[in-house]
Amino acid sequence: MTKQERAVRTRGTLIRSAAEVFGREGYSVASLAAISSLAGVSNGALHFHFASKAVLADAVEAAALARLAELVGGPLPAPGAGRVQHLVDVTHRLAGALRADPVLRAGFQLAGESSRPPRHDLRGHWRAWVEEAVRGAEAAGELRAGVAVRDAAAAVAAATTGLEVLGARDAEWLSAAAVAGLWRLLLPALVPEAAVKGIEVAGARPL
Amino acid sequence: MTKQERAVRTRGTLIRSAAEVFGREGYSVASLAAISSLAGVSNGALHFHFASKAVLADAVEAAALARLAELVGGPLPAPGAGRVQHLVDVTHRLAGALRADPVLRAGFQLAGESSRPPRHDLRGHWRAWVEEAVRGAEAAGELRAGVAVRDAAAAVAAATTGLEVLGARDAEWLSAAAVAGLWRLLLPALVPEAAVKGIEVAGARPL
Repeated sequence: MTKQERAVRTRGTLIRSAAEVFGREGYSVASLAAISSLAGVSNGALHFHFASKAVLADAVEAAALARLAELVGGPLPAPGAGRVQHLVDVTHRLAGALRADPVLRAGFQLAGESSRPPRHDLRGHWRAWVEEAVRGAEAAGELRAGVAVRDAAAAVAAATTGLEVLGARDAEWLSAAAVAGLWRLLLPALVPEAAVKGIEVAGARPL
Repeated sequence: MTKQERAVRTRGTLIRSAAEVFGREGYSVASLAAISSLAGVSNGALHFHFASKAVLADAVEAAALARLAELVGGPLPAPGAGRVQHLVDVTHRLAGALRADPVLRAGFQLAGESSRPPRHDLRGHWRAWVEEAVRGAEAAGELRAGVAVRDAAAAVAAATTGLEVLGARDAEWLSAAAVAGLWRLLLPALVPEAAVKGIEVAGARPL
């Protein structure tokens, strides 16, 4: 391993350790000493990579944002080929990733910290993606007659943000069963009755 | 004013000031000095009433819980006389109170603090109330055929928790229009088609 490869790896380890400590103790309580100790590096090495806790939090958010972009960035289905199903699939993918990935989880939690304005605001990015996805479903003619895009996007954004927040304390809220349950309830409100059965609430595409 | 009345008043002022400072800065960053200064009392007076910041946070949560109990504790409508409407009305009442009352807001936010296990867990109390309300609606025969109480309760709890969390940064999420929009979207999923029009999404009872 070259010196540069080692540096990249140490940086990644520090971001992951910071995410775990932020998630457990909250950003303001988290100490750089706890983070470097969990990462197995010296305080000096931490400071070489990150000048302050705020810079480290920005890096956690940036890494989480890259992960979120990956999760929502797959190819969009063609119009008529299941925009709502795509929305369902992506929420499953996000919930699975939130369960498994402390960096993504911390990125979302940092967006809710009152002591620090978020730099990358993961919750805001997620809301914007949901709104675009709902607009796409409407443009593809998949929404029920009379549904306002604005109401639908806000309800999906609020409900999924609720799962994310409640899931931080109790991972059951982010289980595949919980996400499927949410869609089972929401679908009849979003799509015409005849379309409900054609949508797989458990997610249709391999995650 | 007797000495005792003054003490009660000072205690209330301190709880309100603590709620404001917790809401603005987060629990872990909030300093007792900022709280006593906002309350216009000496540090000594603060310590006379509250031995520590943790004790003060418990008191904020307890006051918020009393307020929540008041909000959800009105008389239940008779079965058949609008259990779903009651649920709609109470969410409007809660959103209005969250907009106006920093103590209630801080109580909910404290339930999400990773640095401190909540003592009264307002979000948990709210979820429990929603579940009971949805069960009541089902028992009264108001839910759509095929709706699982569990799905319905979880969706309403997740969506309203989402509004509360998003509303902490942007009060628009707690506006009467936002709450009505959520219900406009959710109702067709929750109640039979014929019942949708009979339910006032903006809330039926004076708040």
